[in-house]
Amino acid sequence: MRQVYVLSAAMTKYGKSPLSARELALEASKNAIDEAGIKVNDIQAGFIANAFSLSEKQGHLGPILMSGLGIPDIPASTIESACSSGASAIREAWVNIGAGIYDCMLVTGVEKVSQLDTITATTYFSFGSDYIFEGACGASFPGLYGAIARAHMTKYGTTEEQLASVAVKNHENAFYNPNAHFHKKITVDDVMNSVVVASPLKLYDACPFSDGAASAVLCSEDFLRKMTNGPSSKAIKILASGRAGGTGALHQRPDLTTLNAAVLAGKEAFKQASLSTKDIDFLEVHDCFTIAELVALEDLGFYPRGEAAKAEQEGQTKPSGETPVNPSGGLKAKGHPVGATGVGQIVEVFEQLNEMAGGRQVKDARRALTHNVGATGGSCAVHIFEKNN
Amino acid sequence: MRQVYVLSAAMTKYGKSPLSARELALEASKNAIDEAGIKVNDIQAGFIANAFSLSEKQGHLGPILMSGLGIPDIPASTIESACSSGASAIREAWVNIGAGIYDCMLVTGVEKVSQLDTITATTYFSFGSDYIFEGACGASFPGLYGAIARAHMTKYGTTEEQLASVAVKNHENAFYNPNAHFHKKITVDDVMNSVVVASPLKLYDACPFSDGAASAVLCSEDFLRKMTNGPSSKAIKILASGRAGGTGALHQRPDLTTLNAAVLAGKEAFKQASLSTKDIDFLEVHDCFTIAELVALEDLGFYPRGEAAKAEQEGQTKPSGETPVNPSGGLKAKGHPVGATGVGQIVEVFEQLNEMAGGRQVKDARRALTHNVGATGGSCAVHIFEKNN
Repeated sequence: MRQVYVLSAAMTKYGKSPLSARELALEASKNAIDEAGIKVNDIQAGFIANAFSLSEKQGHLGPILMSGLGIPDIPASTIESACSSGASAIREAWVNIGAGIYDCMLVTGVEKVSQLDTITATTYFSFGSDYIFEGACGASFPGLYGAIARAHMTKYGTTEEQLASVAVKNHENAFYNPNAHFHKKITVDDVMNSVVVASPLKLYDACPFSDGAASAVLCSEDFLRKMTNGPSSKAIKILASGRAGGTGALHQRPDLTTLNAAVLAGKEAFKQASLSTKDIDFLEVHDCFTIAELVALEDLGFYPRGEAAKAEQEGQTKPSGETPVNPSGGLKAKGHPVGATGVGQIVEVFEQLNEMAGGRQVKDARRALTHNVGATGGSCAVHIFEKNN
Repeated sequence: MRQVYVLSAAMTKYGKSPLSARELALEASKNAIDEAGIKVNDIQAGFIANAFSLSEKQGHLGPILMSGLGIPDIPASTIESACSSGASAIREAWVNIGAGIYDCMLVTGVEKVSQLDTITATTYFSFGSDYIFEGACGASFPGLYGAIARAHMTKYGTTEEQLASVAVKNHENAFYNPNAHFHKKITVDDVMNSVVVASPLKLYDACPFSDGAASAVLCSEDFLRKMTNGPSSKAIKILASGRAGGTGALHQRPDLTTLNAAVLAGKEAFKQASLSTKDIDFLEVHDCFTIAELVALEDLGFYPRGEAAKAEQEGQTKPSGETPVNPSGGLKAKGHPVGATGVGQIVEVFEQLNEMAGGRQVKDARRALTHNVGATGGSCAVHIFEKNN
């Protein structure tokens, strides 16, 4: 395997958009190509990350995007892994470039859901879990994470206020992210007083339904050398890519307070990179609900079981803290356009490692980890990145 | 890139099934694992090929399948590339094993559409083409292939009877394939007298809506050596994998009588394998409509432009002819469960190269080519295989 780089990463604003998935994907892709400083013809292949484009009556997004970019000959498949589609697509591009099949690839994640009413959109999310055994039996997607939260509270004494503190911190971070879905600082009381969605989770414990797209241009060392003039490049190194699965349904698991896919993917990534948690300067983790951020930090080994909540409450996970988590605002406040999310996490890493993150900048960040979960942990991909200049 | 092998390939019967996609995928996967003679725990990762599982309210099929097999930790993403999803998934497994990421992978293609009425199913197919510019404007999926057929007739003098001869041959072949959707020999008159679907294409020019699944176990040479005792293995070699794209919509193309994605993917595959058409003993091509088989044979260079139709009529493409095409019965008569099709083509190659094909056996077949097209040519993947014993 050759060393693989993220040459550029860019995104659309997340939120409610009048654009279709094809338009959003095109916008993010063009932004990433511009940021990379390459010609569109340098792209040799692509992956699209998407979960729900059939809701817009359009599958087969690869040729739609490549035709839109004016390079219809370029092959591009769609990768779906529920909410971890984005990181899964990044991983397959990493494999293709690492293997020497291609030198330059475009990965674009996209989702468009605002044309669906809330009930329908929530139902679509449940198609990522085990629908026959969960969704069809009335276990909504928030309901499943509600069960995880309740189990965590029972086992470790985690409180609703501690969950709320995750939302408060991520809204604070998103306030400084111009591409975030929300730009509204909130308080613990705001969360506690918001409507209950699936007890103990309230509306402000949940990420929004977002439209949006994010793109990254990945390349080989050879390509990077040809395109840039030494250390001034913004390219970042992919140090590791870990990937694992978990049971489709929650009833198949002995313990609801951990996502085994994340534990395994995290271990694989740290092993590949020969690094440990103390070597990571900040994380972007999959906080589709506030509880998910706590479980992520414990699954990845950043905090012992049951101790992430206290760390969040103490401010350790703020951009200025010792373990900054989701400086972008996370899924919770930056937004969660399903197929785009895993790629969007890498946009944040790209901006942070290149000191482009403004008011949410993590000081002296050199290494970052991304953690992207499919549904309730049926899939997980963990990547580790390093500054290259 | 390391040499990659198809250790085994197996399928369900294609046709109308009472089973769901998850059950079909499980059945084909178990068959392939049994045929490979491996333990389920030997599988290190997987890809699912699927286009329409949301119609059953289930996405994220990877963990559903792996949980069903009893190996939930194993990562598996879904790959969608419309009707070429199957070959695209095979290609990505080829890349992963070739790169040394994994030694043994499961690729399972699956589709379940018989729960949809005919109009809805036809509409789903149009989601693979450019829906805004085609489907939404009334250009149905058969209509698009009708336009291709009409262009071919106009440019080369191809006749409706010649198109019909493709269907007659493929139904004849499927008669000897126990897993085929249809077991009914037909005549040119039967085709000519069948209802017009999209002039000049009639019902018997079109493949059916099929349910079904197909699986293949791919492995490295190291793995193969550990699992088998020399030349008795049924494993077949993957000599080449070509992949390319084409415009999403037909109106963006200068010539409707060729799919540029197939031309490019074919050239890439032949170049990789250092082979030419005369080295191929038989082909499985993407005959979603009879015209598609003719275009495939011309795009891949097996016949000069405008001459495939005469060859079909003369019987050159029968299993006993000089260029056997679709001995399985093809999409036309073996059936076309969208996500499964590209993997199912490899099941036929596996059976033919191991002389397991009974009444449709191509004598002394040592090398085969598969050609799997996404929608109207937005994507194409071409693979070349060789007998290994």
